[in-house]
Amino acid sequence: MAAFESLRGFRDYAPPDAGARSELRRRMRAAARRCGFVELETPSVESLELFQVKSGAEISEELWAFEDKGHRRVALVAETTPSLARVFVDRAKAEPLPVKWFTVSRLWRYEEPQAGRTREFLQVNLDILGVRATTAEAEVLATAALLLDEAGATGLYAFRLNDRALAEGLGRRFGAVVAPERFFRALDRYRKASVQEFRSELSAAGVPDGSVDELVALLAATGRGVPLGEAETFLARLEALGLDDAALEGTRRLRELAGLLPRFGLGDRVVLDPTVVRGLAYYTSVVFEAFDASGDGRALFGGGRYDNLVELFGGPPTPAVGLAIGDQTLELLLRRHGRWPEGEPPLDTYVVAVTPAEVPTALSWVQQLRRAGVSADADLMARSMSRQLKEAARRRARRALIAGPQELARGVALERDLATGEQRERPVEEALRPA
Amino acid sequence: MAAFESLRGFRDYAPPDAGARSELRRRMRAAARRCGFVELETPSVESLELFQVKSGAEISEELWAFEDKGHRRVALVAETTPSLARVFVDRAKAEPLPVKWFTVSRLWRYEEPQAGRTREFLQVNLDILGVRATTAEAEVLATAALLLDEAGATGLYAFRLNDRALAEGLGRRFGAVVAPERFFRALDRYRKASVQEFRSELSAAGVPDGSVDELVALLAATGRGVPLGEAETFLARLEALGLDDAALEGTRRLRELAGLLPRFGLGDRVVLDPTVVRGLAYYTSVVFEAFDASGDGRALFGGGRYDNLVELFGGPPTPAVGLAIGDQTLELLLRRHGRWPEGEPPLDTYVVAVTPAEVPTALSWVQQLRRAGVSADADLMARSMSRQLKEAARRRARRALIAGPQELARGVALERDLATGEQRERPVEEALRPA
Repeated sequence: MAAFESLRGFRDYAPPDAGARSELRRRMRAAARRCGFVELETPSVESLELFQVKSGAEISEELWAFEDKGHRRVALVAETTPSLARVFVDRAKAEPLPVKWFTVSRLWRYEEPQAGRTREFLQVNLDILGVRATTAEAEVLATAALLLDEAGATGLYAFRLNDRALAEGLGRRFGAVVAPERFFRALDRYRKASVQEFRSELSAAGVPDGSVDELVALLAATGRGVPLGEAETFLARLEALGLDDAALEGTRRLRELAGLLPRFGLGDRVVLDPTVVRGLAYYTSVVFEAFDASGDGRALFGGGRYDNLVELFGGPPTPAVGLAIGDQTLELLLRRHGRWPEGEPPLDTYVVAVTPAEVPTALSWVQQLRRAGVSADADLMARSMSRQLKEAARRRARRALIAGPQELARGVALERDLATGEQRERPVEEALRPA
Repeated sequence: MAAFESLRGFRDYAPPDAGARSELRRRMRAAARRCGFVELETPSVESLELFQVKSGAEISEELWAFEDKGHRRVALVAETTPSLARVFVDRAKAEPLPVKWFTVSRLWRYEEPQAGRTREFLQVNLDILGVRATTAEAEVLATAALLLDEAGATGLYAFRLNDRALAEGLGRRFGAVVAPERFFRALDRYRKASVQEFRSELSAAGVPDGSVDELVALLAATGRGVPLGEAETFLARLEALGLDDAALEGTRRLRELAGLLPRFGLGDRVVLDPTVVRGLAYYTSVVFEAFDASGDGRALFGGGRYDNLVELFGGPPTPAVGLAIGDQTLELLLRRHGRWPEGEPPLDTYVVAVTPAEVPTALSWVQQLRRAGVSADADLMARSMSRQLKEAARRRARRALIAGPQELARGVALERDLATGEQRERPVEEALRPA
C-alpha cells in the first residue's frame, strides 16, 4: 500500500520543528502583549460574502471557496482583516478606542507553492483601530520590530515606507493615465526586474518617454532606500516636482513619520522607498514592508493604513493601520542566518530501572518529578539498562536517576550527571526535589 | 448595511477570551513537554482518501469535504489521528520507538451545535506509538491529568476505564447476537438514558430478557464506577460469568492497569466502568474517558488503544494509545467551576504625557520599557491627561509614569502607584529600569 502524502503546498512540521514554531509564537505573543496589544481569535471558515466586500480580485482567485452541507458559500480564511473588521463592527460600541488587536491565525491561499510561499500558512497580525495620527504607523512598526527581535531576527531586517496617495500623485505627475494599478505594478517591479522591464511597464501605464527618464533618474537616486536622516531632502525634492494636494498630503505624513520613528527606536531600521505600494487594494495612505536587510532585499511582509475598511463592513468611519508577519518568510530568514530556534528543549531527568522489578518505582518517580515542575521520562517498554541510558543520551537529559534493587533497599538512588559522567548516591527524597 | 456574522457553529473569541485560550494552550504544551511528549504540527486540509481508510461512517458524514481548484477531493481535518498516522508511516524508519507526540490542532465537524460542541474546535492530542504494554495507557492518562491540572481543572475530573474486547465478550456472553455496535450503543446509553430505554436498546441488540435482567443488576452494582481498590473483586466477578478468551484478555489488561495507575499518581482519579465504549471504531482494547467528577458525569473527552491503525495506513504493525482533549468541553468545565483563566494580564506601566509636547518623550519611554521586558503603553491620540489616567486605570496598570514639562526639565518623572495613589519623583533613567 502506498504511503499517503500531504497536499501540495501543505507542510508537516515534525519534531523538533513544530516545537520551534510554538516557541516563536509564544515569544511573539508575549512581545505583542508587552506592547499593549490584546489577542483576538477568529474562525478559519467564513461566509464567502465576507471576502467579497472589498476589491481583491487577486485574493478572490486564491480563495479556497466551497459550498458547505447547508448550501452556504463559504471559504477558508485567506487574510485576517475581514474577520477582524467583522468582529470590530459587531463590538464597535463596546470597545474604547484605540483598539490594539493581534491575531495568530492559519490562513489558506490557492497559490503556486514556492520557497517562502505555501498554500497553508500562519500569520501574526497587528492592527490598531481608531487612530488617525501617524503614531499608529510608528506603533505597529515598533511592535513588529520587537516581535521580530524576540523571534531572533535582530539586525536581519529593515522596513521600507511609502504612501499610496503620494504614489498615485506621482503617477498623475508623470502622466500615468492608463490606470493607477498599472503604475503601481510598474513601481512594484522596480526592485525585482531590469531597468528595461521597468521602463516598458511604465510605458504600458501610459507614462511618456521623457517622464520615464525623469522617473528612472529619481528612483536611481534613492539607492536601496532613503535613510530617515535624508528623508527631508528627499521629500522636498519630490514636492519640488509640483505634486497635487493629495500627493502633498502623502509627503506630509511621511515627513511626520520620519520625525517620529527615531523616538520609537527605529531610526536606523527604516528607509523611505517610493516604489513600495503593496498588493492589497484597501490601503489608503501609508504602506510599508519589511525586507531582509542583509540578503537580496526581498519583502518579508507588509502592511499599511486602511482608513475606509471598517465602514465598508458596515461600521462607523474608523481609521486603521495593520500589518501581518508570515511564518514562511520568517522561517526562511531565520534559517538563512542560523537563527532558527532549537525546538524541543532537552529533558532534565531520565529515570532508569536497573531490572524490570524497578519499573513501577521508576515510573512513579517520573510522575513526582513532573508534578514538581521537572521534565522527566522513563522507559515504557521495560528494556535493558544500556538501552535506557542510550535513550537518556538521545534525549539530552541533564541527569539519569538510576533505580537499582540494592540502592532502593537503602532508600537511595544513583544520580549520574550525563555531561560529566560523574555518579553519586542521593537519598530518593532529595533526588526527587527540583534543583 | 447589515453587520456580517460568523458561520453557525463557529465562535469569535474577543479579548480577553482569546488570551485565556492562549494561556491554556501554553500551559498544556509546557505540561506535555515536561512529560516527554514532543510536538507535531499537521495541515488543516488533507486529501479525502486519508479519512476514508478507516471505518468512520459517523465521521464521514460530519466531514467538511469539498473539491479544490485542482479537482482534488479534500477535507478539513476532523480528527488528528489519520494525519498523525500518515506522518508516522512516512517517518517510521527514522523514529526511535516509542514515539510520544502531541498536537494542538483546530478541527472541523459538521455537527449540530450545542453547549460544548461547535463546528470548529481545538484539540490537544496525546499519542504514544510503539508500546504494547499498558504502561502506555497509564502514561497518556497521567499526562492528560497533568495537562488538565495545569489548565486549572485539579479535582474537577476523573477517568473511566474499560476494554473493548471485554465489552464485546460481555455482548457475546449476554447473547447480543445482532451486532457488537448495537450492544455498544446500548452500553453507551446506560448512563445517559432511563433503565427502560437501556433495556429496550439491549433487546434491540438481541439480548434475551433474562440476560437483560442479569446485565442490569451487574451494572447497577458498579454504581458510578468501580474504584481501583475494588477493581480486583469486580474483575473476578466478571470472569466468573464465564467469559471467552478474548474477553479474559480484556480483564487481564484492566487488572494490570488497575495495579499500575496508583504508581502514576492516579489511584483516586480512575474508576472502571464497563459501559464505556467510545465512538471511534478503531479502538482495539483499552478505552477511557474523562468526566466531570462533581457534575452530571458527562464525558469531557476520550481515548484508547488503537493497535491496528498504523498498519491500515501502510505502516509496520505498531501498537498505539491516544487521547484528545477538546477545548469546548474543557472551557465549559472550567467556567462552571470558576476556573477560567484571566486572559490578558494587567499592564505594568502607562506613560502619561501632561501636554502634547511630551507625547514624543512618552512614546520613547514606552519603547525603552518594552525593550527592557516591561509591558508599557501610552496614548496614541494626544488626549487629555485625565483621559490618559482613565485609560491607565482601565488597563489595570501597576503605575503611571507622568512626563510633565517641569519634571522633564529636571530629568525626573512622576511615578504614581495606581493601587495606592501615592506619587513620587524619580530620575527618568531609574524609572525606566525594570523593577
